[in-house]
Order: sequence, then structure tokens, then C-alpha cells
Amino acid sequence: MTRFNQPLGANEMPRFGGPGTMMRLPAQESAAGLDACFVGVPLDIGTSNRPGTRFGPRSIRSESCMLRPYNMATRAAPFECMMVADIGDVAVNPYNLPANVAIIEQAYDNILEEGCVPLTLGGDHTITWPILRAIARRHGPVGLIHVDAHADINDLMFGEKVAHGTTFRRAVEDGLLDTRRVVQIGIRGTGYTAEDLDWPVSQGFRVVQAEECWYRSLGSLMQEIAGQLAGGPVYISFDIDSLDPSCAPGTGTPEIGGLMLSQALEVIRGCRGLDIVGADLVEVAPTYDPSGNTSLIAANLLFEMLCVLPKVQSS
Amino acid sequence: MTRFNQPLGANEMPRFGGPGTMMRLPAQESAAGLDACFVGVPLDIGTSNRPGTRFGPRSIRSESCMLRPYNMATRAAPFECMMVADIGDVAVNPYNLPANVAIIEQAYDNILEEGCVPLTLGGDHTITWPILRAIARRHGPVGLIHVDAHADINDLMFGEKVAHGTTFRRAVEDGLLDTRRVVQIGIRGTGYTAEDLDWPVSQGFRVVQAEECWYRSLGSLMQEIAGQLAGGPVYISFDIDSLDPSCAPGTGTPEIGGLMLSQALEVIRGCRGLDIVGADLVEVAPTYDPSGNTSLIAANLLFEMLCVLPKVQSS
Amino acid sequence: MTRFNQPLGANEMPRFGGPGTMMRLPAQESAAGLDACFVGVPLDIGTSNRPGTRFGPRSIRSESCMLRPYNMATRAAPFECMMVADIGDVAVNPYNLPANVAIIEQAYDNILEEGCVPLTLGGDHTITWPILRAIARRHGPVGLIHVDAHADINDLMFGEKVAHGTTFRRAVEDGLLDTRRVVQIGIRGTGYTAEDLDWPVSQGFRVVQAEECWYRSLGSLMQEIAGQLAGGPVYISFDIDSLDPSCAPGTGTPEIGGLMLSQALEVIRGCRGLDIVGADLVEVAPTYDPSGNTSLIAANLLFEMLCVLPKVQSS
Amino acid sequence: MTRFNQPLGANEMPRFGGPGTMMRLPAQESAAGLDACFVGVPLDIGTSNRPGTRFGPRSIRSESCMLRPYNMATRAAPFECMMVADIGDVAVNPYNLPANVAIIEQAYDNILEEGCVPLTLGGDHTITWPILRAIARRHGPVGLIHVDAHADINDLMFGEKVAHGTTFRRAVEDGLLDTRRVVQIGIRGTGYTAEDLDWPVSQGFRVVQAEECWYRSLGSLMQEIAGQLAGGPVYISFDIDSLDPSCAPGTGTPEIGGLMLSQALEVIRGCRGLDIVGADLVEVAPTYDPSGNTSLIAANLLFEMLCVLPKVQSS
Amino acid sequence: MTRFNQPLGANEMPRFGGPGTMMRLPAQESAAGLDACFVGVPLDIGTSNRPGTRFGPRSIRSESCMLRPYNMATRAAPFECMMVADIGDVAVNPYNLPANVAIIEQAYDNILEEGCVPLTLGGDHTITWPILRAIARRHGPVGLIHVDAHADINDLMFGEKVAHGTTFRRAVEDGLLDTRRVVQIGIRGTGYTAEDLDWPVSQGFRVVQAEECWYRSLGSLMQEIAGQLAGGPVYISFDIDSLDPSCAPGTGTPEIGGLMLSQALEVIRGCRGLDIVGADLVEVAPTYDPSGNTSLIAANLLFEMLCVLPKVQSS
Amino acid sequence: MTRFNQPLGANEMPRFGGPGTMMRLPAQESAAGLDACFVGVPLDIGTSNRPGTRFGPRSIRSESCMLRPYNMATRAAPFECMMVADIGDVAVNPYNLPANVAIIEQAYDNILEEGCVPLTLGGDHTITWPILRAIARRHGPVGLIHVDAHADINDLMFGEKVAHGTTFRRAVEDGLLDTRRVVQIGIRGTGYTAEDLDWPVSQGFRVVQAEECWYRSLGSLMQEIAGQLAGGPVYISFDIDSLDPSCAPGTGTPEIGGLMLSQALEVIRGCRGLDIVGADLVEVAPTYDPSGNTSLIAANLLFEMLCVLPKVQSS
Repeated sequence: MTRFNQPLGANEMPRFGGPGTMMRLPAQESAAGLDACFVGVPLDIGTSNRPGTRFGPRSIRSESCMLRPYNMATRAAPFECMMVADIGDVAVNPYNLPANVAIIEQAYDNILEEGCVPLTLGGDHTITWPILRAIARRHGPVGLIHVDAHADINDLMFGEKVAHGTTFRRAVEDGLLDTRRVVQIGIRGTGYTAEDLDWPVSQGFRVVQAEECWYRSLGSLMQEIAGQLAGGPVYISFDIDSLDPSCAPGTGTPEIGGLMLSQALEVIRGCRGLDIVGADLVEVAPTYDPSGNTSLIAANLLFEMLCVLPKVQSS
Repeated sequence: MTRFNQPLGANEMPRFGGPGTMMRLPAQESAAGLDACFVGVPLDIGTSNRPGTRFGPRSIRSESCMLRPYNMATRAAPFECMMVADIGDVAVNPYNLPANVAIIEQAYDNILEEGCVPLTLGGDHTITWPILRAIARRHGPVGLIHVDAHADINDLMFGEKVAHGTTFRRAVEDGLLDTRRVVQIGIRGTGYTAEDLDWPVSQGFRVVQAEECWYRSLGSLMQEIAGQLAGGPVYISFDIDSLDPSCAPGTGTPEIGGLMLSQALEVIRGCRGLDIVGADLVEVAPTYDPSGNTSLIAANLLFEMLCVLPKVQSS
Repeated sequence: MTRFNQPLGANEMPRFGGPGTMMRLPAQESAAGLDACFVGVPLDIGTSNRPGTRFGPRSIRSESCMLRPYNMATRAAPFECMMVADIGDVAVNPYNLPANVAIIEQAYDNILEEGCVPLTLGGDHTITWPILRAIARRHGPVGLIHVDAHADINDLMFGEKVAHGTTFRRAVEDGLLDTRRVVQIGIRGTGYTAEDLDWPVSQGFRVVQAEECWYRSLGSLMQEIAGQLAGGPVYISFDIDSLDPSCAPGTGTPEIGGLMLSQALEVIRGCRGLDIVGADLVEVAPTYDPSGNTSLIAANLLFEMLCVLPKVQSS
Repeated sequence: MTRFNQPLGANEMPRFGGPGTMMRLPAQESAAGLDACFVGVPLDIGTSNRPGTRFGPRSIRSESCMLRPYNMATRAAPFECMMVADIGDVAVNPYNLPANVAIIEQAYDNILEEGCVPLTLGGDHTITWPILRAIARRHGPVGLIHVDAHADINDLMFGEKVAHGTTFRRAVEDGLLDTRRVVQIGIRGTGYTAEDLDWPVSQGFRVVQAEECWYRSLGSLMQEIAGQLAGGPVYISFDIDSLDPSCAPGTGTPEIGGLMLSQALEVIRGCRGLDIVGADLVEVAPTYDPSGNTSLIAANLLFEMLCVLPKVQSS
Repeated sequence: MTRFNQPLGANEMPRFGGPGTMMRLPAQESAAGLDACFVGVPLDIGTSNRPGTRFGPRSIRSESCMLRPYNMATRAAPFECMMVADIGDVAVNPYNLPANVAIIEQAYDNILEEGCVPLTLGGDHTITWPILRAIARRHGPVGLIHVDAHADINDLMFGEKVAHGTTFRRAVEDGLLDTRRVVQIGIRGTGYTAEDLDWPVSQGFRVVQAEECWYRSLGSLMQEIAGQLAGGPVYISFDIDSLDPSCAPGTGTPEIGGLMLSQALEVIRGCRGLDIVGADLVEVAPTYDPSGNTSLIAANLLFEMLCVLPKVQSS
Repeated sequence: MTRFNQPLGANEMPRFGGPGTMMRLPAQESAAGLDACFVGVPLDIGTSNRPGTRFGPRSIRSESCMLRPYNMATRAAPFECMMVADIGDVAVNPYNLPANVAIIEQAYDNILEEGCVPLTLGGDHTITWPILRAIARRHGPVGLIHVDAHADINDLMFGEKVAHGTTFRRAVEDGLLDTRRVVQIGIRGTGYTAEDLDWPVSQGFRVVQAEECWYRSLGSLMQEIAGQLAGGPVYISFDIDSLDPSCAPGTGTPEIGGLMLSQALEVIRGCRGLDIVGADLVEVAPTYDPSGNTSLIAANLLFEMLCVLPKVQSS
């Protein structure tokens, strides 16, 4: 028997029962004693089109009951190597968006202080800026694997500095990123000008447009990227709208021609070996997918993130 | 042929075609020249539970294509007596809730300056405070018919002054209401303390709990209320969650045991004869009602509000 | 053991299995040998707003698997007294609305020739005109219990004579109705002029507006109506939109403030003792009710119609 | 500050965040130290038509986030008087229905041993038989308020003794009920024979058919019933399908013409003063109600049950 | 600042507000002064299976609020080069299918007379025949890029000449097509005989079955096709059911094994350089996709069509 | 005219009408005289997560109305070569899972006795064990093409021998499979240990993980497999969850990264030439796909299975 927390198994409690935590793991209030934690940030008032991401954490946890502890493709067994729990949700302010920057930053300072790697259930993409502020305070500027349909590098949205499409502009301004070790994958769709593509490049980011990903494995791309990002801490920010809407209908600003689910798996599995210090999965808006499958995808991808954390030994 | 704007009829254009305006009326940019207007305020970042009211105006307009110009029950023919148009949406700030107080107030100042009666398609209930600020600036403190499951008289929500549950506390503080001419109908559900019921009474409001409305016509109640509210300007604020969830599932904070649709019709029809200076229909969250009927109800109730405006003569 | 067809029971085959017929009755090609039949008319190209009634018969049959053979409220046991089967669907023309008048009329001539009472699963309300043509050819002008939100007495719709809102104008013109024995129940909503109410009255119809039905049993009303309609053949045409949208969301042109389900039961049960020669249940558009319950209601009301046929003896 | 557990409030954590427990109460593993507990029994393999009740507990808990601790209508404040927690789900066997009788009975023996009143989130109605076995072992034969569309007194279903429609036949056979103190409210619909109505009467039950409830308050009925049931322990078994499908679409075997939500509230509030020793809310099948409101209703009714427990003093 | 109409941007009005026009462009009554227009044809009575395409134009417009004016993949900026507006819907006859041939043809004659390129929001595929009649009257027989699961070359459907599956048979008979410059892409599924594939080939069409498109870029295919179609006017008719149902569930006659979204983008982008004189996007049935994404895809593809019009210069 | 049963065509009866049988074929009670039959097994009490497969057969039949009799891709015309009918559903026991092993086995013995090839509409995967028992009794141990996300080779689930994840362990134990001629395609996802992959290999199965299938045609794989499986009877068991959730959302235990629809077609078409003695399509849970398309896919794949039966000659 392992000494680590285990997800509640379906032979002890049917999948449709048991606690409403991620993977039916034990809940605890803080990150004390944990190698990694799942944490929710149920915020959606930074959203420009369809809302509902506030229910992302609850819905991802619900659908995560399908997950078993062992990764059959990669043979990773994270719960044999790490102490993991679900530490619940950050108490975001539902009425005042800018106030959440400090709230979230403080919550992640607390997590990181415990030496714990946060795996975040979003929430809209606004949340990644304050998370990165806490991450960079602890780890210095980080490399970034940003998987998304959108570059999220607007200066202002409707005149505001804080919104779900300004995240990485703010992060660059704050010096949170090691910009030579930043890659954006899946960028596509319509824009106002070419800036969405050009500004990131001007900052030193590698931008992989969705069109470059069509009809092929991303295995070799990820090998290149892993080479580029090695040698320092790396953060993964995975926006579910990087996926094609056929795969992930439940999101607020879908763009057609996106990644396939197999590609999403390749991207995350391709991070194995990197020094991942945190990761998030954002922009799941469950009401737009009555099947629940967008949340199920998110739960799977969060599990795959767990499987590539440095403490997970290969078996 | 009348000299007034007419809704586009189904013998000219099938109901499923034509402009996306309220009742397929002509659109215009301002309220100039109008006796009454339909105006949208697509705001939902003041919402405490399920979001989606931002799509209320669009959805209400879509479903309003079912409406014909003549009220068969009351024999009102509003488009024979008034110039009415749809003046579109207020450009609310989607990321900064408090900023919207000034934005909305200014928009309604502009409408009222034209001598036009605004009929508002919400949006969450936050919007009624700034609307009332504009209304009271023009008309002085108004009587109020507030139909709702909730009293919306919190001082703070999550520490914030501006939210969808503080509206009428703010309105009282600002002196916007003639508190002896205020009635709240349909109040029910759970609360934190008795204050939701007691504070309004202490201000002089008449509070009609939902339980008083069960199994009966509200005709006589509305006669009493009309008597109480006569003699001054009156505003109607109709929260769709006043209705029982069986009638109006598409809303963010439903409470069981609410009004029936016939009662909603009686309440609004019972306002005939009052000096209605504005009205709103708020809290329609269309994604929670895939049939579209909650929006259809809202469209009907807005039409009924139009039918009781002072300029509509009885036929 | 009875000599009559029986619905397949849930102790022989689970409700979710078995044939896709009404009440899981035996299917047969014609009405030969039947006292009553269920027959579908999957037409919806006479619809003015939301389509989907073409799937009404299929969906009503699916949900009818919930029905058991005995009426606990009225103690009627129709399958102890009558030979009943499901004779399938009329092969309507899906592209040419006017062509269906002759198709449907012929199909019902065939049914009536067998001395069988047709209980029809619609389809939009267009179908009732040709059904009544066949009915009147056999029985002479009939009394009518027409339960509906709309009078359906337009002369033209979009310039056309055949549509779901012209049915009873056509029926009167053709002399199919004994106009002193016609009642319309549940009429409401918006219109173009007062004609929807006034023309039927001018023809001698009794019009019971929805407002007259609110908050009360319709038992005494139905006693009056049964008295008025006795003494000749009677047809029942039940438009599911007579019901309030809270009860029956799955329909194409819903109007608020309609009948409750208990009232629908009272109306049909109140027909007991009349010489019912046919009945239809129209305007179920299943895609607008993901729960399936609108179809389930329709199935129940069709069973209640079966229970009031003259051959059903009281027990 | 109270010494009792409190539901997490919306000013500390937005409604869409926080733990997935009933009312966001603290979770604990056993009933030790509790006056009352919420407990889930996620079983649906006893269901005769639509499945999905296995997700009832999870969904009711999700929607219960809307509930505040104070009952504005009755002024009950249960968390000021009792220690309440959510003790999670019984680990039912998802593949072997009969095995669950012993599993559930044992789980409730454990709860009752702590002197705790169980409030159960079902699950299909099969679960009430083993619950009553445990209840009667501790309290002796109990009075019963059974609110349901169906009598659930079949001897066999598809030849089986254990199913969701045989519960109260089994309970009578086992001597679990004080049959002079049993009332069934809301019975209706179709059946195989008159037995569904006649057998319960023959056992001494009072049967209140749905038809007796139409268009009226159930206040006086409940006064009578409370008089009849006083003087001994009472169990409440509330099947959500007692409600009209317009109110509660999300259930497996809906029957038209049922109770209104106000009547459900009256029934439960009318139990105040009785010696309630347990209660359940069963047959919520959330997938059939995409709005989530059937689960929300269930959550409200469970809260109302909590409010009428003997330890809740009037305020 | 450009002198051309611009879509309303999200920094001026949130995406969920503003006019219900395509891309929130200005509306105008006729095509006068326009280089290109969006126009709706809300017809679905030519549909053989699931209806609902009548709501296609309204739904595509609603979801088009997500679109920004600049094509990041192709760097096309159509609103810098052309005057574009939404000219609303053709007033189709909702009850008489054949009557629509003349109605639609007349409407397109009017558009084309202004020298404007029509981009059509369907509607079922019936509409393309009358559109092509108007197109050919002005431009002579045209080349055709027909993207579809079905060849739509039936002679009769249910004995009728006009229906959504006879369109291109009628077009050939009328001499509207330059048959050596016609390609059909995506054809698949079941049929009655081999004629669906053989007849088009016998007419000189190039038929690209879906099977030829699997697992690969259509870039080179489109180069070939563009070569073949160059030198004369070309019309694009894009049936959303050409896409795999995983991509576009909201359509009436889905066939499995269809195109991916990336392939749809390649097909349309591959038309750049051709003399496109009109285009349509048909068969979106929004009720079958509760996420709204099928309509969103349609909106995107219509924008891509706009981007390949001859007047759009490369940037 | 052929002497074989034909599906009812859309020129005789619109797709939305006609009998609720598979492909609108004639129904018959037994398999007498049939070369192949469609048969439903509406069982879902062996399901570990989301239920609803009990409605699989009904829903697959409903959506099968889209199918025409000729396979345009393979040019197979099965109804020119074989007598096929829909023989309805096996009367499964809805409350007692283990009892169904004997019920199903007996039903298939009866079918096979007639020399008829059964094509099964599931139902959850539990049903394949008893089907294989009957198959092996007649044909001896069979080769197996098992397409699935899961290996379904658990020894026990929640302590039970009979459940939807133990099927092929039971089949091996019973000696029903010729284990050198067994292939599992599409296996993926999370597990408890490596056993899901290792045990089948240890039995001699060929296991093709989903990862091996990404981005490529399965044509050559199927050629290899057909070579391996030739020379003896072969059974196809196709679990709809082998498909990626983007393709088939309506299933109970979805796993991301699965097969595309084109690959599913290739797998089944690749079975041509093998001695197929039976096939099933299991695990469609229609309530999780409101579009109906998962059922439509299933109907198509069942038709493709029919097209590869040995009696279907190439044309």
C-alpha cells in the first residue's frame, strides 16, 4: 500500500457517488504537505463573450470521477510518487474583477510557500496573470507553454487592463516570463490587426499557428519545444479553446480549425522532462456542452499535467 | 394606415426572418421622437450564481418575433397611439461592474431627455439602480412595483456596494423612491436573516410574500396597489425570477413557489391607469432554458408593459 | 383474458424496449376491424414559427411507453371494450403543403369507412381541415371542442389558404361544423385585430378565453359544454399550445397564461358521454422540450381521449 | 456565533465555488455527533423507465449552493439549533440491485445508532425499503407521509421483489409501518388495475389522489394529516414525481396533473410538530432537466424537511 | 479611418450586445452601393428530414458577433477594400415551397443589378436553384464549387421538382452551370443507387468523394480545382453537412465521415484568385446544436468567403 | 423488383414518418427466414458511470430513418442479396443484471438456430458475453474484432462477475474466443494498473492502442488484421466509445483521443471478406447527445456491418 493519497476507486464507491473533489481525492484546506494540488479559480467576469467558466471547477471535478490513477499510454503512476489533494477553490470576488488580481496572487503565494505545484481548474484566462505573478515571485521569470486559440496579448479590452485577453501582455510587462522560452500553440481565427501574431514574435515568443498543426502529430514539434524550454522553470497554460470546437464545444470564445484531442495529449505528454512549476486549464464553460464532455476533457488534461510533473518517475 | 411605427407582420416576413429587433420594430440610434422605446442592457457581471443574463436582450428580441401588435385580452393597441422603436443596447463595460453605474445612468438621461419612456431588456438586476437614478433626476422619487423573488436590499454583497442584490438599498439611500408608494411582490425563499423581509417594511414598503399569492387571482391585490401608487410617477421592475421556476426556468437564482404566468399578466395589466414612467424586465438567462420560452415570456411581459403606458388609450 | 388488443405491458418487456407504436399496441396497415385507431400525420410545413411537429408522432409514440391500460382517475378500461391498434402514419408530402389536403382526406376516408374512430397524432394544425372534411362526409357537420391558444380562423396566411392558422375558417366555409355546437377553449395572446375573438363569436362559436380558466376547475364549464354539444357527433381538436408553456414547452407558437395540465384532463374527461367521432392532438414540436415531457403529455391526453369514446363503458 | 456547523455563505465564497456538499456544509465520514445529516444513495438500477437517478445526489448537492440558512417563510433557523453535516454517499452496488438492500440497511443502522436523523438524497425509490428497515428497527413501526404519483405497492415487477415500485408493499410485509398512520398524497396516472388505489386503502392507508389537490391550498389537509399522524414517529418519503412534470421535469416516470411547488412546500411545512425521524427525497433524474431546476427543487425541499425536524425551535 | 462600413467592434460594444446583423455590420434595405452583401433566406420547407434551417440566418447572425474584421491566417482585410452590409432576409413564403423560386430569384435579380456580390445565409439547399437562376441571368453559366455530403441531383423527391435534393439537377436542366467547371467535394453516405455519383460525372462534374479527403490537407486539391475553374465566373455553394457531424452537428441530414473544419477552411481559402460572383452557406439547423457552434462555424465560413472575393487585395 | 425486404424509402414515406424499426424495415417476431436481423438489447444496468444505454435501440432505430439502401462508398447493396428484418428487442430484466445472461443467451440461441446473422443494437457491453456464449455454441470459438476504448477484461467490478467491463474476461474463461484471432482496437485512457493492456496480450490478443491510430488511415492495419482473422468465424463488437468523444458524445464512459468516424468506417469496411457471424454496436447513451448524432452514427455503422456480411456480393 502506498503512503500517498489515492483517488477513491470505483470498486469502493461507484463513479457517480463519492466526494465532489478532483478525481475524488481527499480534500484539504491548504497545500501543506502536498507535492501537487488541484485548486479551482471559479472566475468568469473577465470573459468577452459567453460566460459560464465560473462553473468550470465544479463541472471538471464532477466529470473527473471517470479518471483512474494510472496512465495507460505513458505508464505514469503519479499517485505512487507524490502527495496530491484537492484544496478547493479560491474565494474570488464575483463582482469586482480587478480585486481578484490580489486575491488570486495571495492564494498562490500561500500554495507555493508550501513547495506545492498548483494545477489550476479555471475560470477564465484572466486568472493566469495573478498566478504567474506568484509563480515568478517564487521561481523567477518562467518559460511558458501557452496552448490557446488566442494570443491574449491585448493591451486593453473595453479600456480595461484586466480581462481574459490581456493576460500575457500584463505578464510580459511585469517581467514574469522568460520570453525566449515562451511558445504559443494553436493561435488562429479573426483579429483586429496582425498584432496578435506580430507582437508575440516581437517579444521573442515562438508562435505556432493552428494551421501548422493540421493533419499531423505534434510529437516532433514538442521535442523541439522541450529542447528550447529546458533549463529553467516552465509553466503550462492550457486554454480549452485551443481545441477545435468539435472537440471542446463548451467554451466561451471558440475558433474553428483548432487542435485535435490527440494533439492536446501530445502537447502535454511532450512536456515530460521539463521543470514544470505550475499549470492551468482554463475557459471551460460547461453550459455550452450538455454532454459534459468538455469538462471531462479538461479533467483528463489536468491528469496528464499531473503525470508530467518532475516528481513522477518513469515506470 | 397609422402614422406610427409598426412591428413587421408575419404576412410580410415570416416570423423566423426579419430584423433582430424587439417585435421586429424599426431600429433607431437614439430615443428622439419616440413615446416609448425598447432598450437593452446586456450586463451580467453583477450576478451571484448562474450567469448568462448578458444574452437576455438578444434572446428576448429573438423570441419577440412571435408577438402581434394587438392585445386580445385587454384590447390595447399600443402602436395605434405611440411612436415606439428599438434603440439597441447600452454599451456596458463587460469587465468593470462599478463603471456601469455611470454608463447606464448617462444612457437613460439621454433617453429621458427625449420625453421617451424606456422599457428595458436586462441584464441582471444591478442595472435598475442607475436607471432609477436617471428616472428620479427627471421625475423625482418614484413609486415602484417591484416583482421579484428577492428583495434585493442587501447593503453589501461580497463586500461590494454594486451587485444585483443591493439595488433597492442603493435606491433608498439615494432617495430615488417614494417609499410609501413601493410594493414588492413575490418575495420568498431562503435568506441569511429576517432582514430581507423586515428592512423593506421598516422603510415603508408593502411586501407581498409569494405565499400570499398562491392559488388565487391577483386582480384585487392589484386594485389595492394601484390605489396606493396612484398620484405620482411609477416605475415597474420585473425580475423574471418572481415567476415560479416551472414557468421561467431560464434565470440565475430561481426560488421555488413563485408566481404563475397568469399572475404576472394580472400584475402588469393591473398597472393600467398608473403614471408609468419606465419599466424593466431583468434576469433572463437564456442558456438555462433551451426551449427559449423564458425569453418569450419576457417578450410578452414587455409588450404588456407597453400596453399599460399612459398614452395607450382604451379601445 | 380479453379478446382485444392489449398494450405491451412492462412486466413482459421493459418500458424502454418493444415496438415503437402508440402504447406499444400492435401495428396494422389499415383500420379494418378496429373500433379506434391511433394514426400519425407527421406534417409541419404549415407552421408559422418554430418547426418540428413532423417529429410529433414519432416522439409521442416513444414517450407513450409509460402508459398503462387502466385509467385510475376515471376507472375507464378502454382495452376491455374496444379493438384498438396503431395504423402508422399518413404518407404526407413533405414539400408541397396544399397537396396534403387530398392525401390526408383520402387516408381518413379509408379509416372512417371501416367504422373506426381515428385518434390522430399531429403534425401541425393544418391537418385538422382535411380530417374534418372526411369526418363530415361520413357524419355530417360535427360539433367541435377546440382547445387551443389560437382561434386558427385566419382567411389567409402569407397569402395562402392552407396553413396551420386557417383551419377552422376553411372548415366553416366548407360547412363541416355544426357551428352552434362549437366551443373554443384557451384562446389568448396577441393578435392583429379583435377578429380572432369576434369572428368565431359571429359564427356562433362559444369562445372561452384563457383568462376565464385561471385558478379554477373546469369541471362545471365542461358540464355546460357537454350539455350544449350533446345530441350529435363531436370532434375534439386539441392543440398542445392550449397549455401554458410551463406545462408544454415543446410547441411552435407558445402563448403565456394557458391551461394547466389538470384543466386539460378535466376538458377531455368532461367529454365523456358525448358522441365523439374523432380527435386529434396537434402541434407537439419535440425538439423544444429536451425532457420529452411535452410528448408524454400528448400521449397521456390521447389515452384520455380513448377513454371517453362512446364504446368505453363505465366500470 | 453559533456552536453549530454553518453552510458556507456567499459572502465568503461565491455560490459557484466551494465544496460539493449539501448546502456547502462541512463533510464528515460518519454521523457521530450530529443531530441530522444529509446522506446520498446514488442508486438507479431499480428504475422502470428513464434512468439517471444515480446522479441525483451529486446534482442536488450542486444546486443546493443557492440555499441560505434561514427559512424566510417559516422563520426556521435550523443551523441555530442542530449540528448538521453532509456524510457523503452510501457505497451502493451499481450492478446488483438486491445486494443493496443489506448495504443500505447497514449504512442507516450506523447513522441511527448515533441518534442522528437522516435526510436522504436519492436515488430511486427502491432505497426507501431498506431505509425503513433500519428506521423501524430503531423506532418501531412508523407513520409515513408518502408524497408520490405512484403508490409503489406492486408485489413484483418483472418478477422481482426489489424494484422502485414495490417499496411500500415490502414495507408493509415487514411490519415497518404503523398502517393507520400512513398517508399517500398525489397518486395519479395510469395503472394496470384499480389495485394501486385499492390495496393501500385496504391496508388502512389514507390515499389522497392528485385530483383532490387541484387548485387549492393543502394547508387544511395537512392539519388533518398531522392530527392523524401525531403521537408516534413519522417518516417522510417524497418522490419528486409527485410534482407535476411542469415543475419537476427531471424524473424518470412523470405523470401529468401533479402537485404544484407551493403544495409541496405546504406538505412539508405542514409536518411541523410531528416526530420526524427521517426523510428522503427520491427520483431526481437530472439529465432530463438541463436547467438544473429539478435538483434545485429537491435541494429546497430537503432544506424544508430539515426545518421541520423536532429539534428546530420556532423563532 | 476607412471609408467603408465596419463591423461593430468589441471595444465599442460587448460581443453579446449590439445589432443582430451579420458581424454587427450596418443594415440596409437594398444592395445599393455595396460591393458585397450578406443576405438571409430563412427557408426550410424543402427539407427531407430534420427541419430548423429557417432559423439558420438568425442564428448565424447571432453567433457572428465573435468575428473580428481581420483574417489572421490569410491576412485579408475585407472591410478595408469593400463596402459590405447586411441587407436582411428575403421574405420567403413559409407555406408554399414552389412559390419561393420566383420570390428568391427576384430578390437576387435586385441584388445583382446593383453589382453586388451576394453571400447567402441559408436556409435549406432548395434556395440555391433560384439564386443560380439570377446569377446565370447576369453572369451566364457559372463554374461551381459545391461542398456537400449529397450531390443534390435527384430528379424528383416525393414526386416534386422543387426540394433541397434536386437543386443541381434543376440547375443543369436550366443551363445555369458551365458543367466542365463544376466540382462537388465531400460526397458520401448512403443512396438509392449509384446515380448520385454517376450522373454528375456523366454531366462533366468532377466529384471528390469524402473518402478522398480523409487524413490530408486539401491544399493541393484546391490548387488543381482553382486551375480548372479559372477563366470564368464561379459560384460557391457550401452545405454545412459537408462537414463531419462531429464538427457540425446542427444540420438536418448529417452523414458520417465528412470534412474537418481545417479542410473547410482550405477549400474556401483555396478559392482565392477565382472570379467569385456569389456564395451561399446552407443547411444550418441550429436547434440540433445547443452549443451554437454550428452557426458559429457557418459565420466563420461566410467571413472566409468574403475574404476571397476578387475585390479583396492581398496585404 | 427484388424478392427481399426493402427499407421503406423516403419517396413513399417521409423520413420522419413510418415504422420505428431499424431502417424502417419490416418487423417480425422471430428470425425465421432471415439471412440477417437487427435486434435490440436495451440493457444498461451493467454500466459503471452514466446510464442511458437502455434507450440505445430505440434511438438508433429512430435515427436510422436517414439511411438509404445502397452504400455509395463500397457499392454494396445488401437488400439485393439478403432477407433482413428487425426482430425487435430482447425482453431483458431491468432489475436483475445476472438474470440477463440466460435471457440473452436463449434469445440468441433462437436467432442462430434460424441460420440468421444477428446485428445487435445495444445496450451496454455486458450483453456481448451472453451473445458470444450463443455464438460459440453454434460456431465454436470465434475470432473477434473488438473496437473499444476499454479492454473490458476486468475479473470483477464492485465484486461482481457480470458487468459491462468484464465481458471479454468471461468470454476467455468460457473458451468462446479463438484467442489467436482476437484484436482490440482503440484502447486508451486511464486505468488502475497496466493489466488492461498486458492481460489481453498475455492471452494472445493483438492490442492496437488508440495512439497507434492517430492521424492515419487504418486501411493497411485492417488488411493485416483481415489476414490474421481469416479462416474461421469472426464476431465484431463495436463499442461506440472507441470513437473520440468529439464524434460520439452520447456514451457513458468516454475517453479522449479516440478514433475518427472515417477510421470507424475503415475498420468495418476492412472486415469485408471475413466470415462474419454476428456483430454488435453497444454503449450508445442517447441522452448525452441532444443532436441525436451518436445514434445516427451507430445506425450507419450497423448498416456498414450489414454490408460486409458474407452473403453480400460485390457489385
